[in-house]
Amino acid sequence: MKAYQTDDTICAPATAPGHAAIAIVRLSGPESFSIAGKIFLPRKKNLQVTALTSHRMYLGQIMDGDEAVDEVLLTRFVAPNSYTAENMVEISSHGSPYIQQKIIQLMLDNGARFANPGEFTLRAFLNGRMDLSQAEAVADLIASNSEASRLIAFNQLRGHFSGRIKDLRQKLLEFASLIELELDFSEEDVEFADRMQLGDLLNVIDDEVKVLRESFATGNALKHGIPVAIIGKPNVGKSTLLNALLNEERAIVSEIPGTTRDTIEDTITINGIAFRFIDTAGLRESEDHIESVGIERTHEKIRQAAIILYLFDVSSTGLEEIAQTILEFKEKVGDEDKHLILIANKIDLLEEIPHHFRNLVDLETIFVSAKRKENISMITESLLKAVDAAPEDKHAILVTSSRHYEALSQTSEAIAAVRNGIAGEIPGDLLAIDLRGALHHLGSITGEVTSDEILGEIFGRFCIGK
Amino acid sequence: MKAYQTDDTICAPATAPGHAAIAIVRLSGPESFSIAGKIFLPRKKNLQVTALTSHRMYLGQIMDGDEAVDEVLLTRFVAPNSYTAENMVEISSHGSPYIQQKIIQLMLDNGARFANPGEFTLRAFLNGRMDLSQAEAVADLIASNSEASRLIAFNQLRGHFSGRIKDLRQKLLEFASLIELELDFSEEDVEFADRMQLGDLLNVIDDEVKVLRESFATGNALKHGIPVAIIGKPNVGKSTLLNALLNEERAIVSEIPGTTRDTIEDTITINGIAFRFIDTAGLRESEDHIESVGIERTHEKIRQAAIILYLFDVSSTGLEEIAQTILEFKEKVGDEDKHLILIANKIDLLEEIPHHFRNLVDLETIFVSAKRKENISMITESLLKAVDAAPEDKHAILVTSSRHYEALSQTSEAIAAVRNGIAGEIPGDLLAIDLRGALHHLGSITGEVTSDEILGEIFGRFCIGK
Repeated sequence: MKAYQTDDTICAPATAPGHAAIAIVRLSGPESFSIAGKIFLPRKKNLQVTALTSHRMYLGQIMDGDEAVDEVLLTRFVAPNSYTAENMVEISSHGSPYIQQKIIQLMLDNGARFANPGEFTLRAFLNGRMDLSQAEAVADLIASNSEASRLIAFNQLRGHFSGRIKDLRQKLLEFASLIELELDFSEEDVEFADRMQLGDLLNVIDDEVKVLRESFATGNALKHGIPVAIIGKPNVGKSTLLNALLNEERAIVSEIPGTTRDTIEDTITINGIAFRFIDTAGLRESEDHIESVGIERTHEKIRQAAIILYLFDVSSTGLEEIAQTILEFKEKVGDEDKHLILIANKIDLLEEIPHHFRNLVDLETIFVSAKRKENISMITESLLKAVDAAPEDKHAILVTSSRHYEALSQTSEAIAAVRNGIAGEIPGDLLAIDLRGALHHLGSITGEVTSDEILGEIFGRFCIGK
Repeated sequence: MKAYQTDDTICAPATAPGHAAIAIVRLSGPESFSIAGKIFLPRKKNLQVTALTSHRMYLGQIMDGDEAVDEVLLTRFVAPNSYTAENMVEISSHGSPYIQQKIIQLMLDNGARFANPGEFTLRAFLNGRMDLSQAEAVADLIASNSEASRLIAFNQLRGHFSGRIKDLRQKLLEFASLIELELDFSEEDVEFADRMQLGDLLNVIDDEVKVLRESFATGNALKHGIPVAIIGKPNVGKSTLLNALLNEERAIVSEIPGTTRDTIEDTITINGIAFRFIDTAGLRESEDHIESVGIERTHEKIRQAAIILYLFDVSSTGLEEIAQTILEFKEKVGDEDKHLILIANKIDLLEEIPHHFRNLVDLETIFVSAKRKENISMITESLLKAVDAAPEDKHAILVTSSRHYEALSQTSEAIAAVRNGIAGEIPGDLLAIDLRGALHHLGSITGEVTSDEILGEIFGRFCIGK
């Protein structure tokens, strides 16, 4: 951890780049107040920066020597009551990127260093303001673009996930103390009873780790959006359907001007859950073109998808043949984890809807006209139903980070090794090695044990200024 | 003015859209505190929003009913000590556009109205916190992207320009009172002496208005960048020169990561002054293509430019002929306001630089190799010298707004009418009409007289949230 310099003063813009009413630049570290004192002239004469009340905004000017640069509001945060738990200063200026750059330049000239991505949060972590999984939640919260991803990140930030991990670690420590007890009394032959007890405790821990590991599929999908593939033969109306689905949502979501939604192309959000359409670039090309792209691309899409919308032209002749193809497809996909929804398109060309088709395939089939936008809402409802993966309890603890998932898997492996050790009646001091491994992996999630490499990876993904 | 609703509570994001450490949403108006009270739960229990100290940041959570949305810092500004002079609230949340939109939605649900562009500043103006030209300076300051444009806007914000206008208006009022005096004493035949005095005072006012009007060319150029045209025959290296100039600057400017400079294409900033290259889209096309675009586009470029970089291939034969063409060109342009700088390109193809060329044309000639980037800095120095238009005193008052220029021109016309009236010995009460016109036009600059239409035009150009 010591590889990170934490005894200097860092600065960075804290708001998004661009012209706006307000832009904020922040300073953190021991020299924050003295640097701010050199470039800030309070409106109220004879007021020193070091005399300002913590957490209070003061009007004044940023000075470049004798030249006033901008009128700003400055707030001082006295350690440890700040985001980083260090002395901090926030300067709120007019939202001109030029002015913001000028203020930062003045901070650099007066001894500050430009912060690395995530360095403010890194300091908050190193100073014990939050654990590592909470720090990761800060980045997730900023990146959140749906109700589900916000909620997961926010709960993680509030320590729900860390609490569970710490609880597990506590149980493992209990287990370790039982092992030690056994070591102490090993000559008195109390071993057998203890090993039963050990096994039971281990099962409880292992089950809990397993529940967390299994939540990753849902957690990851909710965080990044549920991957949906639209597949079907050429000219069945795939791109028309995609547009109809996207328009459906746009009609629901009333945009507040000035707030830019994340414009992840081809994602719709239903009841706070994002559905991400895979490889829509292909769909946006002319449909004729698609056949030439070949079957491989389709296979790749199916592999990635959690939900497959299988589209066919219900107005074409030979529905029995189509049903046969679909049944073969279902056989091939064969993966219970994937939801297959049949979309019978082009009902506008029919006089009567062939409801009997459902009997041919025994699969959910939605009859629509993508062209006339008929029954599109039935698809969105169906998408939502398909995510029964979404937990009943919206505050359920879900693993959303592959780093955490990795660590939990390694914990499981170490626990399995302990279990084998118990079965093989190996000595307690050897069990202790695997036990320490399990404790290490759990501890790496919350940062009780960590390395520069892990920290570099985590905080390198943050935005500047956080 | 009453057309603007000012008795309700408005809200908007105040920071630029995008993912960032911090995003700010602001509320202004009578219900600011009660709306904030409904959606903010302070960390410290039993603390009411209305009990929070003004200008102090409080930690807490934004609540959507029972559901916590985000951890935020809330600041209350008690009227009249706020930007708008109304009760205001600023909420600093995690910089997720989704969260920001959610907070705004909660404000709207609780009775706020989404603000129009510039509406916070409009309220500041209507509440007497700043005059109209200062309000306009706020938008200019946010848009500023060079030292010169920042300085002009900042001085205008600080009231330097308004002060001058108010001073002029005061003198006109003095003049008006002299006219009234004359009316009072008209039967006593004191007229002649007074009219001399009136004429003198009018000259002083007229001269000052003229100085301001004449500053518009410089002010406008400094604000928007000095327009520069690069012209020359095909294949003399125009696009290579443009790239060399742009690279020259990029080598000088050390970008601070995370702060986005305005990426106005093809603008270079030298000593804080922006030079804007006109119609560079043409230059970026293949040079062969250019000839077909025709002579008209070149004429248009020359018309717009303040500085013309005339490029020719000094390695080609027939320098006398080139000199002849240049002299004819100079004759045709014939405008003393335009700076013509000759760039003799491709010196890399010559063994010796033909300095005698300067004698042929009697014009500033810079010998360069755009390809090898030789002597490019001589061009940037020359550009800077050409702007001797830039005032000695960098705090000189410059007119930068065409609205102000218009108003000053109309003031001049009204003054001329008054002058003619005096010369024609028309009665004082008729003079008073033109005099009122002059007062009206001056007053429109600072907003002492204004209309919904003018306000709509001015504030409609602001960004949301300011």
